[in-house]
Amino acid sequence: MKVDAARFLRDLHELRNFGASGVGKGVVRPAFSDADVAARRWLAGRFAEAGLRVEVDAMGNVFGLADAPSLLMGSHSDSQPEGGWLDGALGVIAALEVARAAREAGGPAVSVVSFQDEEGRFGGLTGSSVWSGYTPLPEVDGIADHGGLTLRDARQALGDLVTGDVNPAQFTGFIELHIEQGLTLAAAGEQIGVVDAIVGVRQIPITLTGQQNHAGTTQMHLRRDAFQGLSRFNTTLNDRLRNVVTPTTVWTIGQVDLHPNASSIVPGRVTFSMQWRDGDADRLRRMERIVRDCAEEVAGDMGLGVEFGPMWELEPTAMDTRLRTALEAGAETVAPGKWRRMHSGALHDATNVARLMPAAMLFVPSIGGISHAFEEDTDEEDLVAGLRVLAEAVARL
Amino acid sequence: MKVDAARFLRDLHELRNFGASGVGKGVVRPAFSDADVAARRWLAGRFAEAGLRVEVDAMGNVFGLADAPSLLMGSHSDSQPEGGWLDGALGVIAALEVARAAREAGGPAVSVVSFQDEEGRFGGLTGSSVWSGYTPLPEVDGIADHGGLTLRDARQALGDLVTGDVNPAQFTGFIELHIEQGLTLAAAGEQIGVVDAIVGVRQIPITLTGQQNHAGTTQMHLRRDAFQGLSRFNTTLNDRLRNVVTPTTVWTIGQVDLHPNASSIVPGRVTFSMQWRDGDADRLRRMERIVRDCAEEVAGDMGLGVEFGPMWELEPTAMDTRLRTALEAGAETVAPGKWRRMHSGALHDATNVARLMPAAMLFVPSIGGISHAFEEDTDEEDLVAGLRVLAEAVARL
Repeated sequence: MKVDAARFLRDLHELRNFGASGVGKGVVRPAFSDADVAARRWLAGRFAEAGLRVEVDAMGNVFGLADAPSLLMGSHSDSQPEGGWLDGALGVIAALEVARAAREAGGPAVSVVSFQDEEGRFGGLTGSSVWSGYTPLPEVDGIADHGGLTLRDARQALGDLVTGDVNPAQFTGFIELHIEQGLTLAAAGEQIGVVDAIVGVRQIPITLTGQQNHAGTTQMHLRRDAFQGLSRFNTTLNDRLRNVVTPTTVWTIGQVDLHPNASSIVPGRVTFSMQWRDGDADRLRRMERIVRDCAEEVAGDMGLGVEFGPMWELEPTAMDTRLRTALEAGAETVAPGKWRRMHSGALHDATNVARLMPAAMLFVPSIGGISHAFEEDTDEEDLVAGLRVLAEAVARL
Repeated sequence: MKVDAARFLRDLHELRNFGASGVGKGVVRPAFSDADVAARRWLAGRFAEAGLRVEVDAMGNVFGLADAPSLLMGSHSDSQPEGGWLDGALGVIAALEVARAAREAGGPAVSVVSFQDEEGRFGGLTGSSVWSGYTPLPEVDGIADHGGLTLRDARQALGDLVTGDVNPAQFTGFIELHIEQGLTLAAAGEQIGVVDAIVGVRQIPITLTGQQNHAGTTQMHLRRDAFQGLSRFNTTLNDRLRNVVTPTTVWTIGQVDLHPNASSIVPGRVTFSMQWRDGDADRLRRMERIVRDCAEEVAGDMGLGVEFGPMWELEPTAMDTRLRTALEAGAETVAPGKWRRMHSGALHDATNVARLMPAAMLFVPSIGGISHAFEEDTDEEDLVAGLRVLAEAVARL
C-alpha cells in the first residue's frame, strides 16, 4: 500500500478553510456550527469519492465505510471555540488517505470516521460517547451550550444526512492519529509517540454562594464574597494536592462565572469548573476527596454555601497490545530511534471507542506544545511521518 | 411646610413598577433601558403636575425647576442590572414631595433632579459627572456597555425630551436623601445618618496574560495560567493591605473575565476590576502603589504579562457645613437621639454636584445592610422620617 503525501496534505489544508479564523492556521469550527456542518458535508463527499459508503448517525458522526469486516480509523473534525487546524482534523484526513491507498492496493479494508463534538460543546467527547453506548443520546440531547442552544436543536443542521445507526460489530479495531498537544516529543526532537494509555479525567462544576452586596458600604469583616471563596479554595487546593500528585498529574480551573460580575458589587455567587487528570484511577479518586473536602472546608470557614454539580468521569484507558505493537513496528521503520511509548494526557475519541473494540493511538509532535489555540502547528514532515506509520501498521495487521 | 407621607409613599411604589423584577420589590432599570426611559417620562409628568418646569439635558438628566434661585434636591432613578427599589429612587421621590409641599406652602423654592446612569452602565455617576463638567459628554459618548451599545446611541431613547443645558448657577445648594446601603444605622437601631464626607474611590482594570493551552497535556510546571495569577495576586494583596487599611477601608474584585473560559483550556488571559475606597486621599494613594506593585511582582514571578487600564478616581468629598447643620437640626427634631454623623462608603451624585455648589446628604437605614440586590429594603417609617428631616432642614435654610 502506497500513501500519497501530497494528496493527504492538500486535503488537510482544504479542511482548514472551513471556519478559518484568519489568525495563523487557526480554525473556529465548534460542533454543529455552520463551518462544522459544511466541513462534514465536504468530508462525506471525499469519503464517497474514495469509494467508501457514507453513513451518518443521529449524533452527526460521519462514517466512510469499506466492506465489513474492516479496520476503523479516524478522529474528529469539530474544533474548540478558538482551535488549531490539526486537533482532530489530522486523524480524519490521515485515515481518509490510508483508506484510499488501501483500496488502490486492493486491501486491507479500512473505514473512516469523523466523530462529532469531541471538543465538548455539549459535554465532552459527545459523538464517540454516544456511539459507544456510554451516554444515551436522549440523556445528552437536553444539554445546552453557553448560548442556550440544546444538542437536540443543534443536531437538526445535519438531519438531512442522517442514515441511521452504524453497527460497531463490523469493525475489527480502531486506530487514531492525533497531535500530542504537549511538549514531550518536541522537546526530545522525536517524530512519533505510540500511546500505551490515555489518562483518566474528572470534572465537576462547583458553585460557591455568598451575599451579593454594595462594594462601597459593606465592611470587609461583614462580607461573604464568592470570589474570595474561590481564591482561597484554589490556594488551599494547590497546597493540599502537593502530597498526592506526580509530575504528570494536572488540575485546572479553566472556567469561572462570577455573578453579577460588576466592579461595584461584592460577588454573591461564583460557578467554576474543577478538572483533574491522571493515569492512575486510584489517584483520581484521592484527588476527588481532596477537592470536595477543600471546597466544604473553605465554604464553612467563610460562611459560603457550596454545591457540586454532576461529575464527569472517564477512567484511564490502556491501548490494545496487538494494535500498539503494529504501530511500534511502523514507527521503528519510519522513524528509527525517533519515537517513544507514552501516556496521552489528553482525552480522545479512542477512550470511548475502546469500550467497543481494540483501540490504539499514535502521536506526532506539537510545535511549542501549543494546542487548543490558533497557534497550534506541526512540521509537515512530522505529519507525513505519522501518516506513513499508520500505513505501515495497517499493512502489518 | 407640610409634607404628605401617603402621597410620597404612593409615588415611590408607583416608580417601582417601572422595571419591576418580580422578585420581592427588586427592579431592573439600568440607564436608558426601556424601563428607565419610561420611568423618566413618568417623572417628567409628575414634575410638571407639581408645577415645576421640566428640563432634560443631552445626558438624560431630568430636572423639575422652581423659579431661580432655588435649592436643588434629588438623586437618580436608574438602577443596577439587579437593583433595589430605593437606591436613587428614594431621593428623587422625596425631593418631589418636598418641592410639592414647599410650593403649597408658598416657598421656599425647591427644584428636583433625577440624574442619569448613576449606576455606571456607561462609566460611573455618569449623568452628574457630565452635568458637573467633570467629564465632557463627547469623552464618555464612545463608552460601550457590556452588550456593545455606546452611550451616544443609548441617549437617542430620550432625545425627544431634551431641552438643552441646565444652568447650575440657578441653584443655591444640593441635598440628596439616600439609603445607607450598609449596616451602621440598622445595627445601631438608628433612623437617620447625616453624612459628613463621602469616601473617595479608585478603580482600575488589570489584565494578566499567560499562555492559553490544553488542560490535559500541559504539565503544571510549564503552565502560564492567567487564573492562577489572579488568585495569587488576590492572596498577596489581601496580605499586603493589612498594614495600611482601617476598619472602614474596603477593596473589591467584583468583575472577572477569563479567556477563553473553557474547562479544558489553561486560561491564557484574565481581565478583572480592582476597586478600593477610603475617606483619606493619602491612604487611597498608598493603596494604589501596593496594588500596582503586587500585580507587577506576581506577574514577574509567574511569567505573566500585566497591563493596567485607565484608573477611575474620585477624591473624598466633605459635605457643606451650613446644609449639614440644617440636616442635623432636622434630624434632632424628627428622630431625637436616633441619628448620627457618618461617612458615606458609597459614591453618590452629591460627589459630583459638590464641584458646583454646597452639597449635603442624608441616610436612612438599609434592612440587613443589603443593597444592589433585589432584597434591598427599608421600613416605611424610616423612609418617612428621612422625608420629614429633609422638610425640616429646607424650612430652616
